[in-house]
Amino acid sequence: VNMDTGTRDFYIGLSLAVSSSIFIGSSFILKKKGLLKLSHRAGSGGFGYLKEWMWWAGLILMGIGEAANFVAYAFAPATLVTPLGALSVLFSAFLASKWLNEKLNILGKVGCLVCLLGSTFVVLHSPKEQEVKSLQDLQYRLADPGFISYSIVVLILSLTLIFFVGPRLGSTNPLIYVTITGTIGSLSVMGCKGLGVGIKEIIGGNTHELGNWFFWILLISVVFFISVQMVYLNKALDLFNTAVVTPMLYVVFTGCVILASGILYKEWSKLPAEDIVGNLCGFLTIISGIFLLQAFKDLNISLPHLSSMLYNDNNSNNNNINN
Amino acid sequence: VNMDTGTRDFYIGLSLAVSSSIFIGSSFILKKKGLLKLSHRAGSGGFGYLKEWMWWAGLILMGIGEAANFVAYAFAPATLVTPLGALSVLFSAFLASKWLNEKLNILGKVGCLVCLLGSTFVVLHSPKEQEVKSLQDLQYRLADPGFISYSIVVLILSLTLIFFVGPRLGSTNPLIYVTITGTIGSLSVMGCKGLGVGIKEIIGGNTHELGNWFFWILLISVVFFISVQMVYLNKALDLFNTAVVTPMLYVVFTGCVILASGILYKEWSKLPAEDIVGNLCGFLTIISGIFLLQAFKDLNISLPHLSSMLYNDNNSNNNNINN
Repeated sequence: VNMDTGTRDFYIGLSLAVSSSIFIGSSFILKKKGLLKLSHRAGSGGFGYLKEWMWWAGLILMGIGEAANFVAYAFAPATLVTPLGALSVLFSAFLASKWLNEKLNILGKVGCLVCLLGSTFVVLHSPKEQEVKSLQDLQYRLADPGFISYSIVVLILSLTLIFFVGPRLGSTNPLIYVTITGTIGSLSVMGCKGLGVGIKEIIGGNTHELGNWFFWILLISVVFFISVQMVYLNKALDLFNTAVVTPMLYVVFTGCVILASGILYKEWSKLPAEDIVGNLCGFLTIISGIFLLQAFKDLNISLPHLSSMLYNDNNSNNNNINN
Repeated sequence: VNMDTGTRDFYIGLSLAVSSSIFIGSSFILKKKGLLKLSHRAGSGGFGYLKEWMWWAGLILMGIGEAANFVAYAFAPATLVTPLGALSVLFSAFLASKWLNEKLNILGKVGCLVCLLGSTFVVLHSPKEQEVKSLQDLQYRLADPGFISYSIVVLILSLTLIFFVGPRLGSTNPLIYVTITGTIGSLSVMGCKGLGVGIKEIIGGNTHELGNWFFWILLISVVFFISVQMVYLNKALDLFNTAVVTPMLYVVFTGCVILASGILYKEWSKLPAEDIVGNLCGFLTIISGIFLLQAFKDLNISLPHLSSMLYNDNNSNNNNINN
């Protein structure tokens, strides 16, 4: 098969994004399994070797997953990589049902299927090539009035939420901290992608980029943004149920990344209208899947429950309609 | 806009398929509304003018819808027209919530969205041009060993179900009558499409097709298949709940039409692999949507019910995991 660099990069990025989700998804399970074993033996004096090993294995898997995710941004468009993050939710739900005996109800199963279908559509319709190939390219694009406006809006919004709205409503409305995390997160992703492209250049031999002040400013901003993001993600998770925070964050975060990426990297500029429609519909499909997977987690419902409605109850309405 | 005949036909077929679903979807509502009004006044002596008018309007709308559906097959591939039949389920659920006060629960709403998204993908990835343009073409294709095998399998399966399995299991397993209806239905659709192409030819000036024995054999077969189909659809609807029959029938019927159409009309022959994947995923997405819309109809669930799980219950597990 004869493949050009753009297509090859696309498939590298795609594989990295998918495997990153597998790593992150299984890391949740390993960490939880380790902690469960630990709590079962709490009386017997604690931190055994095996359990610690499992918890650490989970942490390391998560590190590998996040690294794979970071590298994926250097190869494929953010519009592809970010939405596929949904797969980690799916893998962790699937593995939890296998290894942790957390039963997946029928809505969870349909949610998994819908998530997978949505991810397929995002892959099918995502831009196949990136428009930014060097740090210089990016530096030039950052001056784009569209992206400057986007950044200003994000910063003003976040500062308002952090200093004015958060203290009053943050503990009753999960959307406040989720919005801070998601919008700042979109800036981190834009920076990560730039860093990734820069590192790719350096590995490719362009070592003079190491002396480029822009590279280091990018690195500092990314570290700063990720720290802010972590603080508010932890606040949200402390106060609210993961099953509520996860889908909300997915929507806000992925939505902002798609928007920011569209403005900064112009990933959609060469995309035909039907791919834009397909991409957005795929994103909406994933959101529906995650919602089904998470929102009805504790609902005790299964197909046998539904069999009670199998037969026609032959009331007058039905009879009338069949006449 | 400069459009070739194939593309123009595709959009004509698409519009007809969508409007047919709107007509059929609203016809259900009108008929039901008429019957409800009738039953409310049952004591006062029955068939008033207005109620009869509504019921008849429903029946006429349904006729128009079925006609539009029939004509759609003459313009667009069956792989596009049949799956879009799902939209009639969606419109009728939507209109029932507006006009009949049948509350659509949150799963019904997500189901509608997922149905719409799936339909969009089917449209995006469906073959844009049909391969059969004349009755002669079709006559030639019917001799295809693939299609002959398909027909023989369908006929043997249906006869077995009708004469051996049906009498024993038909009243306990809805899949028996649904399979008869769906598989025979796929033969009706193949015939309808042939008839549609023939009528298009005749209207286009090829009046000698009226003297073609093949046209009349096609017509007789279609009438025969539709009658059989109706008998077993009514049996299924008499015995089982519409909410169970509708999604099952959609899956069997649409699946068989896609298969038969792929064999007979070779609609997929020129389609790139990613459109085939997209088409099948779109079909699966619609199935998930219909399942959500129908299977949980009587479940009393809404977003406020879910808000009880908003907050973290701060049990030891959660604390451990956040540490």
